[in-house]
Parts: sequence; structure tokens; C-alpha cells
Amino acid sequence: MYVIAVYDVNEKRVGKMLKLCRRYLHWVQNSVFEGEITEVKLRELSQKALDIMNPAEDSLIIFSSREARRLEKNILGLEKNSLDKFL
Amino acid sequence: MYVIAVYDVNEKRVGKMLKLCRRYLHWVQNSVFEGEITEVKLRELSQKALDIMNPAEDSLIIFSSREARRLEKNILGLEKNSLDKFL
Repeated sequence: MYVIAVYDVNEKRVGKMLKLCRRYLHWVQNSVFEGEITEVKLRELSQKALDIMNPAEDSLIIFSSREARRLEKNILGLEKNSLDKFL
Repeated sequence: MYVIAVYDVNEKRVGKMLKLCRRYLHWVQNSVFEGEITEVKLRELSQKALDIMNPAEDSLIIFSSREARRLEKNILGLEKNSLDKFL
């Protein structure tokens, strides 16, 4: 399945969330990630995210599509992850 | 069409971008919006966003799907826009 994940967590936990999401998805911008992922891996990611998060303060939203075909993506302005590809 | 829009702009321009996106889409979290929008309205939103943005610093990513059916959305943790519904 194809997902877009967006987190909003307290800055104390941003580093951990960033590291976790990077292990499963591709970083797009800020706190936004996308990528193909299996259902099993998505459950794993969700569980690990919940372990990091404080549910009273933090949130993680996962938009998912069962179709293999990706959504169209248009970037206006700066493509912030262009450097990231080479790191 | 159905879109998810995520902006990352300098804080000087955040207020304007938030106000603009709210006129066309539903606020989800932080700088994330979603909703059904016509192609004409999406072009209008994009043009207005470009007028606000500094293309050397800011970005706006629009994920779009031509299918009417929405993506599945799962929220882990706090549903930040729950209050927003009543405002």
C-alpha cells in the first residue's frame, strides 16, 4: 500500500519520530513522509510511533491507499528533499 | 479531485498561507490540509500560494488523486482538529 504520514509531536520527541519514519518511508518535507509499505510494516511503524508519542500532546496521521498507483505529487517552490537524496 | 496539501514556509508567511489554504481545503494538522477541490480551484489556490511564497525558501506540496474516493485516514494520538470543527 501507499501512504503519506504526517506527524505533529512535541519537539522533545521530534528526533525520535524523524528517525523512526525514515526507517520505513521517504522524507518529503518537514514532518511529512511518503512511500510504499506493506500492511505488516505499517502496523510495526504505527506501534513504534505510539511507543514514542505522548497521546495527550502528539499526533500522527496516516493517509493510505490500497492501490499500488501513487498519488500525483506537485511541488511548488523549493524542493526541500532534493539534497536529502544524496545524503 | 481529492488533495492533500502540505506547506513549509517561513514563519513570516505562515499566517497568510494558513488563511489561504483554509479558504479552499480543510485543516488537518499543523501545515496539512485535505479536501475535495475542482481543478480550476486548485489552479487558483496554487497561483495564490505562489504569490505568497518566496520560492527560494518556501514550498507547497500537493498530493492529488483524480478518484472521488478519499484515501483512508488514520489518526494516532491526539486529533488536533477536533476542536476546529466547532469553531
